[in-house]
Amino acid sequence: MKVTSFADANCPVALGLERVGEWWSILILRDAFHGLARFDEFQRNLGISTNSLAKRLTSLVESGLLEKRPYQDRPVRYEYVLTPQGRDFWPVIVALYSWGSRHFPPESPTVYLVDAETGRLIEPVLVDAPTGNPVDGAHAAFAPGPGASEQLRASLERAVVPPRS
Amino acid sequence: MKVTSFADANCPVALGLERVGEWWSILILRDAFHGLARFDEFQRNLGISTNSLAKRLTSLVESGLLEKRPYQDRPVRYEYVLTPQGRDFWPVIVALYSWGSRHFPPESPTVYLVDAETGRLIEPVLVDAPTGNPVDGAHAAFAPGPGASEQLRASLERAVVPPRS
Repeated sequence: MKVTSFADANCPVALGLERVGEWWSILILRDAFHGLARFDEFQRNLGISTNSLAKRLTSLVESGLLEKRPYQDRPVRYEYVLTPQGRDFWPVIVALYSWGSRHFPPESPTVYLVDAETGRLIEPVLVDAPTGNPVDGAHAAFAPGPGASEQLRASLERAVVPPRS
Repeated sequence: MKVTSFADANCPVALGLERVGEWWSILILRDAFHGLARFDEFQRNLGISTNSLAKRLTSLVESGLLEKRPYQDRPVRYEYVLTPQGRDFWPVIVALYSWGSRHFPPESPTVYLVDAETGRLIEPVLVDAPTGNPVDGAHAAFAPGPGASEQLRASLERAVVPPRS
């Protein structure tokens, strides 16, 4: 998937998404965070065709999010592990996890994200690192950058930064 | 896009992604946060075909992320605004924004997310609301839920919760 419009060529959300490509790729990254690494592990968990999985893994390697490395010699076999750039995708997965848990709670959740010490469920919120303020409508706002079109500049006056929920 | 495997039918990430569908839908939600609301606004900004855009907007309305409401009578014209559920998608957009800004910085950014008071760039990090601890490898861990397969249970022992970066 290729960014086409000028607006998107200068938007970090679009540029980031372009590397992930789509849905399956995000689920592969999720699985990598869950400790899956081998082709057959991803395949069993995702129920995806060999062909599709191979294509997505290759694309995630090319984008620099996964590293392919041999774990066995004869025959040579590879595993796929998160690169530093891939590990940095962590907050996106957590934010999706949190949003999904809230609005589409599974009957029988596969995984919980818990406090390492107490085992209590984590309640993820975004804050601004230097101030500790939540990234919400009371503390954050959009400002147009040099790449903003006239339309975007005008629409940002109606921009939505939600209250903390 | 439909969740197929049992694992994914119980994963909040997969269930969440299923509502968003794909790439374009996330960009439409991004635009909605930027204040865009009308069909032609989305279309101009995204450079997407009328047909594709109509399909995605309908799907986001059906999934409960956008609300379609008339803003003009004759002829009747609609705008698309974020529902509470759609507004809750905010942390996903911010996490993507932050990841994209870091690893694929645009030459000429369209938008900045700034401190409402000082105008300084926001540096979003995820913390656990009750404790304020960062959601990183020092403070958070995965625990298998009731829906975890044997494979997932085993792989979670190698799970990756990155250090704060």
